[in-house]
Amino acid sequence: MKVLGIVAEYNPFHNGHMYHIEESKKLTGCDAVVCVMSGNFIQRGEPAIINKFARTEIALGNGVDLIIELPVPFAVSSAEFFAYGAVNILNSIGIVDCISFGSESGDIRSLKKLAEILVAEPEGYKDELKKQLAGGLSFPVCRQKALEKYLKLQNDSNGDLSYLLETSNNILALEYLKALIKLNSPIQPFTVKRISNSYNTPELTGGISSATAIRNSIHESEIAASRQALPLLAQQILEREISVGRGPNSLHSFENIILAFLRHATPQELENIQDVSEGLEYRIKNAAENSGSFDDLLANICTKRYPKTRIQRILISLLAGMKRVDIEKFMESGGPQYARILGFNEKGRELLSIMKKKSTIPVITKASYYKSSSDSLISRMLEIEAQATDTYVLAYKNPAFRKAGQEFTQNIIICR
Amino acid sequence: MKVLGIVAEYNPFHNGHMYHIEESKKLTGCDAVVCVMSGNFIQRGEPAIINKFARTEIALGNGVDLIIELPVPFAVSSAEFFAYGAVNILNSIGIVDCISFGSESGDIRSLKKLAEILVAEPEGYKDELKKQLAGGLSFPVCRQKALEKYLKLQNDSNGDLSYLLETSNNILALEYLKALIKLNSPIQPFTVKRISNSYNTPELTGGISSATAIRNSIHESEIAASRQALPLLAQQILEREISVGRGPNSLHSFENIILAFLRHATPQELENIQDVSEGLEYRIKNAAENSGSFDDLLANICTKRYPKTRIQRILISLLAGMKRVDIEKFMESGGPQYARILGFNEKGRELLSIMKKKSTIPVITKASYYKSSSDSLISRMLEIEAQATDTYVLAYKNPAFRKAGQEFTQNIIICR
Repeated sequence: MKVLGIVAEYNPFHNGHMYHIEESKKLTGCDAVVCVMSGNFIQRGEPAIINKFARTEIALGNGVDLIIELPVPFAVSSAEFFAYGAVNILNSIGIVDCISFGSESGDIRSLKKLAEILVAEPEGYKDELKKQLAGGLSFPVCRQKALEKYLKLQNDSNGDLSYLLETSNNILALEYLKALIKLNSPIQPFTVKRISNSYNTPELTGGISSATAIRNSIHESEIAASRQALPLLAQQILEREISVGRGPNSLHSFENIILAFLRHATPQELENIQDVSEGLEYRIKNAAENSGSFDDLLANICTKRYPKTRIQRILISLLAGMKRVDIEKFMESGGPQYARILGFNEKGRELLSIMKKKSTIPVITKASYYKSSSDSLISRMLEIEAQATDTYVLAYKNPAFRKAGQEFTQNIIICR
Repeated sequence: MKVLGIVAEYNPFHNGHMYHIEESKKLTGCDAVVCVMSGNFIQRGEPAIINKFARTEIALGNGVDLIIELPVPFAVSSAEFFAYGAVNILNSIGIVDCISFGSESGDIRSLKKLAEILVAEPEGYKDELKKQLAGGLSFPVCRQKALEKYLKLQNDSNGDLSYLLETSNNILALEYLKALIKLNSPIQPFTVKRISNSYNTPELTGGISSATAIRNSIHESEIAASRQALPLLAQQILEREISVGRGPNSLHSFENIILAFLRHATPQELENIQDVSEGLEYRIKNAAENSGSFDDLLANICTKRYPKTRIQRILISLLAGMKRVDIEKFMESGGPQYARILGFNEKGRELLSIMKKKSTIPVITKASYYKSSSDSLISRMLEIEAQATDTYVLAYKNPAFRKAGQEFTQNIIICR
């Protein structure tokens, strides 16, 4: 059985995702699909619009056979760590033959070439990067400029590949490829050229619309407007979740919790969070005092140097009780400490049984069994996940679904 | 100038309060009225329906000349500490000649007699109290039974005074009297017999209605219904505050903050709060996990042994970051560390100038001057007040009023 690995957030699952799965199946000739998916919080530092189990149901009904959770420390992280965590899991479970991701370029050869340079960091590139960074521009801009100059000097037969760093899906694709190289993984990479509009286009654009546009439409209670862009099951489950009062969730739901937490926190406590350094703790603390709303808070913290996603990830870390020292410990021990299953279908069940034999990390199907694991890294990683979920559920409108501990009581999704 | 002292919450100020002030003036023949009033949180462990400065405005327009804040550690405390803190301030400022409080009995002589017994705790009473407590009933019930037996044995000429412990205003009156005795205060006590219905009657009953009934009516957006029970200025200011989005505040406004705080807190952190002992920390922690709403939370914690007000006070302490050790330190140093002025009128200004000379505790008219006081007890007491207010304002609907630090920026109320 040839197994394809995919990394996704499915926030929410839409026609573009379905297209990606179908094209990837054709491209790789795979027989089964495993997806590593973000849990209740996503990479840009926001709660997912509906919870991970509901999103699992949708994905299982639309071509994915087995879903594994990307733990919060990687899910709510920079593109580099996000990709590293996810690829690491796909690599560790021992059943994945190939991986496929979207990109604007659609050209795996160029992407691989560039990824190799970024991992190897040859002297000429490194020197140029240092020079650029001294100019005070942001890292992504400097990296692109440095690459452009380096490749020119090299007179590389591939020509200037630095344009690949201009768009978000290429950048993420490069991170997946970098992770494969770093892990010396045998998984074979493929890429599907994206047909949709730009990732961040805020307007609905018919059958293929951006997740951003779809989320906006759902938050504005216009789920009907985004129907065209969603598979039927995604529509149904989104509608079900919203109707019972389990979504749509947004960072605004945590406005008072975040302001209260920040007002109570000491700068030292904030400084213990990943990505808080160089006095940012005081900037955040000060903004929390002077802001009456979540939008004010972001406006008072964010600058070019401190982009919104970085700040939002810091706020989610605060909600999940996740500290820099946690991340450091996980990374010292190889990254994700387990592969936690969120759901599977019949084919996924077969994958699971092979995986249980081949995986080099524990495969968790019942989180409660690992709650008090003697392996402190496993129990800590689960504790962070549970804390994140205990806060996530407070965004629900229906109090019946707001209880804590759901991380350990919710059964995984089994589709027949 | 003969000065009368009053202790109040004015939550909100109503006709019953006006009656009490007018009767007290007649009874004592005073020329001026000083009131020690709870701030943004009140004795039963709830946020005040509108903030302390708005409540100050109303009181200054209805017969009070000078308002002093009862600091959170005493305002949100048992009847005994509440009364002790307030009487202590009235006693310390050096200008108060008499105090007047409401009571169901209206008989100051019997109340004084009983207060003396309660302070002296004669052996016969103490032994009887021990016996009663061994039976497992609540302290108030045991105290009343013990007193009844003790007085019978004494064949006291006053007869059985234990009936005085049956009603809430008599109980509070006794606490004021106990505090006067303990402080060896020269302040002369008076009592005004209450004409209103029982303190806790939840229905509006015309011109004199309970504060509970008035608050309920306001929370149900039926402020018009309670107009009859409110002086005009109270109606106007309540309506103004609500219309600009600064109230009405209730504990439910803090539902998510409280649940999130409790879910993040360790049992040890909870155990550091006043009144949390004998494993109550685990009971609270457990309830926070298993409750999806504030009402669920209370229902899951409260029992006869753990009454609602005790639990609510614990929750407010959590919001204000106030610990048992804070209370202990304040009490070791005589209780309230300062007299903080909330507002005054022309006569109040005269009182203030005399007070500044006579007071044995610092008189604070500008809180910001004391923010970094070298006296750590003063700065800590103010810090708790500020933290309480920084959370209180998050209940406002209007984000413009939700900024932190208002404790140090709000000017005191000066009425002409």
